[in-house]
Amino acid sequence: MTEKYIIRESTKDDCDQIMKMIRELAEYERLSDQVKLNAETLQRDCFGEEKFCHCLVAETISPGECGEEKLLVGYVLFYYIYSTFKGRACYIEDVYVTPAWRGKGIGRAMWTEVTKIAVAKDCVLLRWAVLDWNTSAIDVYKQWGGQNMSEKEGWLFFLMHKQSMVDYLAKYTSIK
Amino acid sequence: MTEKYIIRESTKDDCDQIMKMIRELAEYERLSDQVKLNAETLQRDCFGEEKFCHCLVAETISPGECGEEKLLVGYVLFYYIYSTFKGRACYIEDVYVTPAWRGKGIGRAMWTEVTKIAVAKDCVLLRWAVLDWNTSAIDVYKQWGGQNMSEKEGWLFFLMHKQSMVDYLAKYTSIK
Repeated sequence: MTEKYIIRESTKDDCDQIMKMIRELAEYERLSDQVKLNAETLQRDCFGEEKFCHCLVAETISPGECGEEKLLVGYVLFYYIYSTFKGRACYIEDVYVTPAWRGKGIGRAMWTEVTKIAVAKDCVLLRWAVLDWNTSAIDVYKQWGGQNMSEKEGWLFFLMHKQSMVDYLAKYTSIK
Repeated sequence: MTEKYIIRESTKDDCDQIMKMIRELAEYERLSDQVKLNAETLQRDCFGEEKFCHCLVAETISPGECGEEKLLVGYVLFYYIYSTFKGRACYIEDVYVTPAWRGKGIGRAMWTEVTKIAVAKDCVLLRWAVLDWNTSAIDVYKQWGGQNMSEKEGWLFFLMHKQSMVDYLAKYTSIK
């Protein structure tokens, strides 16, 4: 197997393979039951008129029986956010490399590309989240210069799902 | 003092007053030293060609000596993000009400407007962060239907400042 790969912007046609990797990541994160997204929705939101996110992929090119074979072995999905303390920022939602291709610097190469894009966009912050039991990722992030803001300042990560949003509106828009 | 207020979209002209409130919020969060943003940059990023965020404000209108007096007493700043597990989502970066105007439902009224906007935009998630010592806010969020994902799944909040991004690039783009 060749170890050559390129990092490139993703296209609409990558969505099936990206979705497959998203499911692999969810499995690794022990959160498989949470994946509701599908390739069509990802296509609409990543490549439609209104873009909610950006995605780079790592692609390997190997000689196959019927010519060159291309395979996606990693992806990084990110978007721009805003810090009212600092200004423009970039959020890395996922960075993933398939197991067989780990340890070759592909994750770092994708992180590097996003960092370059963010700096070029005048972003002064990168933000991301990691699960507390994923100590190998935490170690790498700290080595790269990442700071654990949950530890440092006590930030907790909150969310409300669609049903809670609807329940909230039903409850509070009837009370004036 | 009248207790009437409206929630409306912010305009360029609000940026000075929003910046003042951002500084008040930072003081409350004991993070004043972190505020590097100014009104000009906020104007560019919130109202320029490329929008990094959206902002609603709470405005009071009182009878004054020289006619009606308008005053901003709160703001909520948000943007769209993306969950690879769930799809379109909305992130509430800040929600703030000036001390004299708390306890009148203004925070909840702004949260309600953002929730409506997010639902209309087909968002299936609201996300936000809160400091662990801010128990009064945490209690309110839980009452509204928010889930503490740091507690539930162990998500930690990470970031890298501009200098760390530059250091990272200097370190890893020289290693091939």
